[in-house]
Amino acid sequence: MGDADYELRPHRVAIPPPKPFYQSLESSLKETFFPDDPFRQFKNQPMSRKVVLGLQYLMPVLEWAPRYTFDLFKADVVAGITIASLAVPQGISYAGLANLPPVLGLYSSFVPPLVYAMLGSSRDLAVGTVAVASLLIASMLGKEVNPNENPKLYVQLALTATFFAGVFQAGLGFLRLGFIVDLLSHATIVGFMGGAATVVCLQQLKGILGLVHFTHGTDLVSVMRSILSQIHMWRWESGVLGGCFLFFLVLTRYFSKRRPAFFWVNAMAPLTSIILASVLVYFTHAEKHGVQVIGHVKKGLNPTSVSELVFGSPYLTTAIKTGVITGVIALAEGIAVGRSFAMFKNYNIDGNKEMIAFGMMNIAGSCTSCYLTTGPFSRTAVNFNAGCKTAVSNIVMATAVMITLLFLTPLFHYTPLVVLSSIIIAAMLGLIDYEAAIHLWKVDKFDFVVCISAFLGVVFGSVEIGLVIAVVISLVRVLLFVARPRTFLLGNIPNSFTYRSIDQYQVANNVPGILILHIGSPIYFANASYLRERVSRWIDEEEDKLKSSKEADLQYVILDMSGVGSIDTSGISMFEEVQKTIDIRGLKLVLANPGSEVMKKLDKSKFVDKIGQEWIFLTVAEAVNACNFMLHACKMNAKRVESEAADNNV
Amino acid sequence: MGDADYELRPHRVAIPPPKPFYQSLESSLKETFFPDDPFRQFKNQPMSRKVVLGLQYLMPVLEWAPRYTFDLFKADVVAGITIASLAVPQGISYAGLANLPPVLGLYSSFVPPLVYAMLGSSRDLAVGTVAVASLLIASMLGKEVNPNENPKLYVQLALTATFFAGVFQAGLGFLRLGFIVDLLSHATIVGFMGGAATVVCLQQLKGILGLVHFTHGTDLVSVMRSILSQIHMWRWESGVLGGCFLFFLVLTRYFSKRRPAFFWVNAMAPLTSIILASVLVYFTHAEKHGVQVIGHVKKGLNPTSVSELVFGSPYLTTAIKTGVITGVIALAEGIAVGRSFAMFKNYNIDGNKEMIAFGMMNIAGSCTSCYLTTGPFSRTAVNFNAGCKTAVSNIVMATAVMITLLFLTPLFHYTPLVVLSSIIIAAMLGLIDYEAAIHLWKVDKFDFVVCISAFLGVVFGSVEIGLVIAVVISLVRVLLFVARPRTFLLGNIPNSFTYRSIDQYQVANNVPGILILHIGSPIYFANASYLRERVSRWIDEEEDKLKSSKEADLQYVILDMSGVGSIDTSGISMFEEVQKTIDIRGLKLVLANPGSEVMKKLDKSKFVDKIGQEWIFLTVAEAVNACNFMLHACKMNAKRVESEAADNNV
Repeated sequence: MGDADYELRPHRVAIPPPKPFYQSLESSLKETFFPDDPFRQFKNQPMSRKVVLGLQYLMPVLEWAPRYTFDLFKADVVAGITIASLAVPQGISYAGLANLPPVLGLYSSFVPPLVYAMLGSSRDLAVGTVAVASLLIASMLGKEVNPNENPKLYVQLALTATFFAGVFQAGLGFLRLGFIVDLLSHATIVGFMGGAATVVCLQQLKGILGLVHFTHGTDLVSVMRSILSQIHMWRWESGVLGGCFLFFLVLTRYFSKRRPAFFWVNAMAPLTSIILASVLVYFTHAEKHGVQVIGHVKKGLNPTSVSELVFGSPYLTTAIKTGVITGVIALAEGIAVGRSFAMFKNYNIDGNKEMIAFGMMNIAGSCTSCYLTTGPFSRTAVNFNAGCKTAVSNIVMATAVMITLLFLTPLFHYTPLVVLSSIIIAAMLGLIDYEAAIHLWKVDKFDFVVCISAFLGVVFGSVEIGLVIAVVISLVRVLLFVARPRTFLLGNIPNSFTYRSIDQYQVANNVPGILILHIGSPIYFANASYLRERVSRWIDEEEDKLKSSKEADLQYVILDMSGVGSIDTSGISMFEEVQKTIDIRGLKLVLANPGSEVMKKLDKSKFVDKIGQEWIFLTVAEAVNACNFMLHACKMNAKRVESEAADNNV
Repeated sequence: MGDADYELRPHRVAIPPPKPFYQSLESSLKETFFPDDPFRQFKNQPMSRKVVLGLQYLMPVLEWAPRYTFDLFKADVVAGITIASLAVPQGISYAGLANLPPVLGLYSSFVPPLVYAMLGSSRDLAVGTVAVASLLIASMLGKEVNPNENPKLYVQLALTATFFAGVFQAGLGFLRLGFIVDLLSHATIVGFMGGAATVVCLQQLKGILGLVHFTHGTDLVSVMRSILSQIHMWRWESGVLGGCFLFFLVLTRYFSKRRPAFFWVNAMAPLTSIILASVLVYFTHAEKHGVQVIGHVKKGLNPTSVSELVFGSPYLTTAIKTGVITGVIALAEGIAVGRSFAMFKNYNIDGNKEMIAFGMMNIAGSCTSCYLTTGPFSRTAVNFNAGCKTAVSNIVMATAVMITLLFLTPLFHYTPLVVLSSIIIAAMLGLIDYEAAIHLWKVDKFDFVVCISAFLGVVFGSVEIGLVIAVVISLVRVLLFVARPRTFLLGNIPNSFTYRSIDQYQVANNVPGILILHIGSPIYFANASYLRERVSRWIDEEEDKLKSSKEADLQYVILDMSGVGSIDTSGISMFEEVQKTIDIRGLKLVLANPGSEVMKKLDKSKFVDKIGQEWIFLTVAEAVNACNFMLHACKMNAKRVESEAADNNV
């Protein structure tokens, strides 16, 4: 037989030696909460080095600051000024979206970036407020407190919500529960962001059309009803102004997209629009002809707001709920953005550490009159394109915003609201990623369903409803996968010892008298009874087929366990039941390649003794070989008995 | 090379031909909702046969009735009378547990068994009320309506809840959603049943101690507080009576367990106790000395109760909630019981069909003054031991109960409540399955945690709390499995083409220059970022190890995809990112044995083109072989260049 011979000599499937309980608990806890092994670099280091590494771990600024050079600084200043020119108009716009005073948007671009520069590990992330979270704050808090009737309480609740968002974010990071953010799948985020962007755009129709009264609902139906019922109130002045600036902004974006070297055209466009529009209004006195303006914006740096956090308010639960939901959304966006840009430049980001940085930044923000901030995609992309090198660009941006707060706020008095609406719409149009949705449809229909349900949920229901629908559908998918695992028939690939799915490989051949089944998932309570029935059905079908084709009877059922990563006690009962039914049918159950986890549990529950360890094989090939040997031996035996009987008759 | 040669000639990994969308949707829907393929027997049959099969499918009685013989009938009569002797006392006791009039328990053993005999597919199941569901009804409805102050409304709500339980059960069956019941794992049920049995026993202390006032709470703390605060109210008369009968019942059970031939001793014990106790009370007039008795029980068959179903009541939501929860619990018990006994006798039970049978039986029950019934374990076990052959034993039991209802109810007037408490306690003690809990601890610690949390939740919280805790923990476990799948290093088993986990098989050897990783789960959004980090860490660790041992550099990373049953778009992005990082490190990514589902999606998303189809192999061995070939070729090339350079120098 030559070389091939050794392949056929069966190997024993080892039962792993018992591990003490605390050891296996420790290793599985480590795998669950510290998959990235953050303490690896601490190993085998002297104490002093460990302290330095620890401090650097907590504050990444200590790591890169000593190596900071003037060349890096030059690059960061350019990037910082560029993003500041975006931060000021966006800050004011998004604050309006959250129904907060415009100056809060500016405050939020001052303190949080400074905190992030100390604690964050991304070199590209630009900190600021985001549209979707702003809208969520408006819709969730607005249900309880009217921002026009009770502006002070509303601001207090927004700050309190920001505080809880920060606590929640930092808590997730400390407890190493970062994987909760992973429950928002890519498909969910595409659909959710698209829906939220649509909703935000719809809200801007108020500004564009110069309407004074507007629905509090965010869904398509109420917004369209509100707009169409007020046709006689539409103001052409603000419509024309808004339309022009929107066209200008979309055009510059298109231009910058085609020619990446001119990224600054796009980055500067919002500020240019604001300046142009303010000048226009100032000279034409358009504010007296239906064009609403921002009005007075307070001068001066962030006042402290610790006393504004209302922990004793009857609306505390609303604030907590808002904080937790907006906190998760903000985290998901910020971490995804940080990770994407880190991958471009090939450095690593520790998700849990980032969560702590975001959390601290929001806690600090909530005490200094800032509302929820994260790392928005648009601003970070501009930062990246502008050639930022480190988080110093955030410090530069903060400084520029500080100067604005100290000296330039009166200039915004005549800024028309409609131009802010245009800025928001232009930013939002980039978030409706229909190409990604088409890609999802092509590659994975189920992901497309998740995406489109999130979108429809947000557009026709509310932001929260869309999110809940999408997360629930995603989870159902995971559960459905576990509840309905794939099983398939294996056949022999000709001229090899390899066994593969007969469906996938047309060349694979059945082995006469032996049914080989592959189980493609862990065996858990959620799928144990399904698998039991499915295995029975495979055997039924095979026996029917053999009966009609008059081939050799079925004698052995080999279960290929390569895909069974884990098993619980329900899974073991399922095996016991399967063995019983197979026994009753006069067949023999054979296992191939059970993993160590499975082998350990099968042994502990005495199933290995029941089936016989000699019937557990390392590979399918070895199992088939042993079965064939037995089949052959039986046939020989039968022949011998027959011929003996014949002899006796003679 | 001989025979082994062909093993090394690489096979192409086929990309499955594209299937029309509706076809793959149809097949996956079929796999999800019809895993047992109930229509298989209808295939290739003439129309008339199909009609007969269809009717038989809907009403299994049509299948077995024509073949029913007198021998079978004799066996069924014996079994039916045996379970009737259990049904009467249990029916009265459990009705008391649900705070319902005792006669409702008798009604419930008359109509539902008849319905089940027509529709059910189990031959062993004995229909009746169960303790846990009765307690749940009492605790859930009792929160809203006091059964003593408003008995009519309470009964109406119980009947309405039964109606909704039936609708829900039948609905699950019609919609083929039977797998929802699978979410109650074996461990959950052990813990939950143990807890519920404990709680039920605690409630019986009221009867045993002859207390008149008792707490409405079911948790250990309130019950003990209620009992200890009333020490001066304890009645020794009922205590002694209850203790004696409990001892008698436990003794007979123990005896029957040791000698299965005397199963009838155990089965008859409750009825014997009731007769003895009633006679005792009648002659000693103990009802005047603190021993509470049942009192008047109405004579006559089930009155219709359609008009009692209160769909317009303000408590409708409570009734629906109670119905759904008790319905699921009852289903879980009934189906598990039916399945276990079917396995003993080697026939099949269709879970979804059983659900419809249970549902119809409860809907019919709710219209004829019966409350929630299912297939209780104790009664079914007695039925089985008594040698029942078909569902006719249920009909016999119903007839016996009918006779009781028509003629014998006055006999229960003097039956003391305390003996009912003893009957309940004796039945409940059998449900506390501490041996199963010990088994769980030995085999699977996590299952033990699930079990014990269900137990503690029920005992210290409430039945609902325990259930919710256990289901949530079980689901978290499934999610955690998906979120943190196992990855492990593979090594070559000496003298073979087999690659297995180095952890599990000490003999497995590393292949120099090649890192082989096995991924043991589908790649989904929930684990994509974990897997990306984990793969990076494996590479880091391997490079560190190689650096310290000065072995050959790492050149190839082979991902063994045998365990990856499925992938979504987040998983594909993860692959793209992994490939990017691996490229940046100067390594080459190689895939081995991707399944058809995975291959299809990798192809659609153009990842196959990115990695190059020539780098996707059928087996790990082929992948290693190709990598080794390239390593060797490179080395030869390098040597050649070196020697040429040397030549040139010369």
